[in-house]
Amino acid sequence: MFDNKEKTEIAHLGEFGLIDHLTKNIILSNKTTIKGVGDDAAVLDFDNKKVLISTDLLLEGIHFDLAYTPLKHLGYKAIQVNLSDIYAMNGTASQVTVSLGFSSKFPLEAVEELYDGMLMACEKYKIDLIGGDTTSSKQGLVISVTSIGYADKKDIVYRNTAQEGDLICVSGDLGGAYVGLQLLEREKLVYLENPNIQPDLEGKDYIIERQLKPEARKDIIELLKEIKIVPTAMIDISDGLASEILHICKQSNKGCNIYEEKIPIDTMTYDTAREFNMDPTICALSGGEDYELLFTIKQTDYDLIKFNADVSIIGHITEQAAGCNLVSKSGNVHELKAQGWNAFK
Amino acid sequence: MFDNKEKTEIAHLGEFGLIDHLTKNIILSNKTTIKGVGDDAAVLDFDNKKVLISTDLLLEGIHFDLAYTPLKHLGYKAIQVNLSDIYAMNGTASQVTVSLGFSSKFPLEAVEELYDGMLMACEKYKIDLIGGDTTSSKQGLVISVTSIGYADKKDIVYRNTAQEGDLICVSGDLGGAYVGLQLLEREKLVYLENPNIQPDLEGKDYIIERQLKPEARKDIIELLKEIKIVPTAMIDISDGLASEILHICKQSNKGCNIYEEKIPIDTMTYDTAREFNMDPTICALSGGEDYELLFTIKQTDYDLIKFNADVSIIGHITEQAAGCNLVSKSGNVHELKAQGWNAFK
Repeated sequence: MFDNKEKTEIAHLGEFGLIDHLTKNIILSNKTTIKGVGDDAAVLDFDNKKVLISTDLLLEGIHFDLAYTPLKHLGYKAIQVNLSDIYAMNGTASQVTVSLGFSSKFPLEAVEELYDGMLMACEKYKIDLIGGDTTSSKQGLVISVTSIGYADKKDIVYRNTAQEGDLICVSGDLGGAYVGLQLLEREKLVYLENPNIQPDLEGKDYIIERQLKPEARKDIIELLKEIKIVPTAMIDISDGLASEILHICKQSNKGCNIYEEKIPIDTMTYDTAREFNMDPTICALSGGEDYELLFTIKQTDYDLIKFNADVSIIGHITEQAAGCNLVSKSGNVHELKAQGWNAFK
Repeated sequence: MFDNKEKTEIAHLGEFGLIDHLTKNIILSNKTTIKGVGDDAAVLDFDNKKVLISTDLLLEGIHFDLAYTPLKHLGYKAIQVNLSDIYAMNGTASQVTVSLGFSSKFPLEAVEELYDGMLMACEKYKIDLIGGDTTSSKQGLVISVTSIGYADKKDIVYRNTAQEGDLICVSGDLGGAYVGLQLLEREKLVYLENPNIQPDLEGKDYIIERQLKPEARKDIIELLKEIKIVPTAMIDISDGLASEILHICKQSNKGCNIYEEKIPIDTMTYDTAREFNMDPTICALSGGEDYELLFTIKQTDYDLIKFNADVSIIGHITEQAAGCNLVSKSGNVHELKAQGWNAFK
């Protein structure tokens, strides 16, 4: 990931030297940012817009494995994961703060790789990195990102406002990130057994990228604005489709029917899941980390979105008493259960 | 800290169960908070005020030692440390997000203690806890806090706006938190050598509390508003007086004279530093974690503040070429150096 010959000890720079070094090239591009890095707090101006705030904590050994995660990708993903929450409110993401904890033995070049990935994500999504904290860690790499965005009050979409009869939509395709992770885990084991064997990831770029370098669906938020749909409820898919639709239904006091045959699964995801003897539908329902958007729309909006190849309509909202159900391809009805990722198990 | 008999495994609750459990008693008290915990992002409304954002990362083994830090105090301090940055902008702190990482073997009651301390700080300072993230950690306790506040544009005080001739002021007294830490570290060593010996902290409440339970100086911000002083520059003292005044001078392109005899040091801090054969002035200059406010005011504002017992005038701002100096009690002039805490050394 970085040339071993170039190793600069961070202790030489000290905390403030390191922060100066990492942040010296930051160019603020949002007019909502008045003051970024360099004071006790950043100063932002959102006029009369509402402010959206979300935060995530990513820990080595829990959320990522540096054995197969390039630091630049990790930095990129840490930002995307967090922006995804702002888009899931139908908002415009505008700033992030980034706190990093890493071993004092971590070379400067490694921190630069991580930071480069973060700044690359910021540049692509027009986000200002406005502050953070940097400290040494005795405990592996720690990444904490807070993202800030804004929206007009009338545009904000919550989770608890789905209505009976609404259509359930999902962007992109599901399960890929999870199947990509299985592939990376397998190759890590192979490598640990015999370091001379090259990883066999050929032709698997798509699902590897789904895992290592996800993209938050800013484009879907822009599309919805363009076609003048304000979803009735929305959430991003970080823990798997089942867990997320259950959040919407529980908070909205509704039920749902999801049709297995409508769940968008990419061919590579499907085939690779089968190679691992896994059910592709289970991967989509419970895999997580897809960072697609799950949203509900009024039936009257159907015509506005039905031909969009990047949005699938997978079911509809029902009354609460009907429960949350998956209708299988064979027509059987199963109760949906959240078997998504539980960090405490 | 918590009764060993009552231990509830967090794995039983799962991540969402844990979040529900911890946040169920949160009452939002700020009209700037529209939506707190429970969606992809929190929603805030600051009308035409500017928004202030600051973030800190606290790691076990680096920033705190659970051997002598009660979890409730730690939670309280984690919030205070972060609010202090908002006050240092002359702003009103209004919300925090809290992310926690801890071992899955951590009992629920321990997390509750930590959270109780956080909520106690929030209640006292009228702060809404609006979101966060909770995950297991293989690496000890991880605490990330982001604080959010607001201010009118004309009231915001930066670090880089000190002017020549301005008076340098500091709230409260300095060095106590550092000397308190030395005391706790000493008693920890005594305990490790012989667990039967009770810690000898009698009569040292003040400096122990300075270390374990600091208070952000919201009262000073309120005082300044009341007496109609807007400081010309301000910073909070987290890394020691020397490091902070150097930040103000460097960013303002100015110099300073600080008078040793004017630096406020509490008697207990002074005496205990002497017991440890440490120079109390060095403890004040380089100790850190006092979370007092360091600010500069115009000379014409002197009469407004001179009788306030909680604010000391310790020097003045000079031209940059004159450098940053400490004038000792004996009249010798020393160049000020930042020997504050460096997490990477």
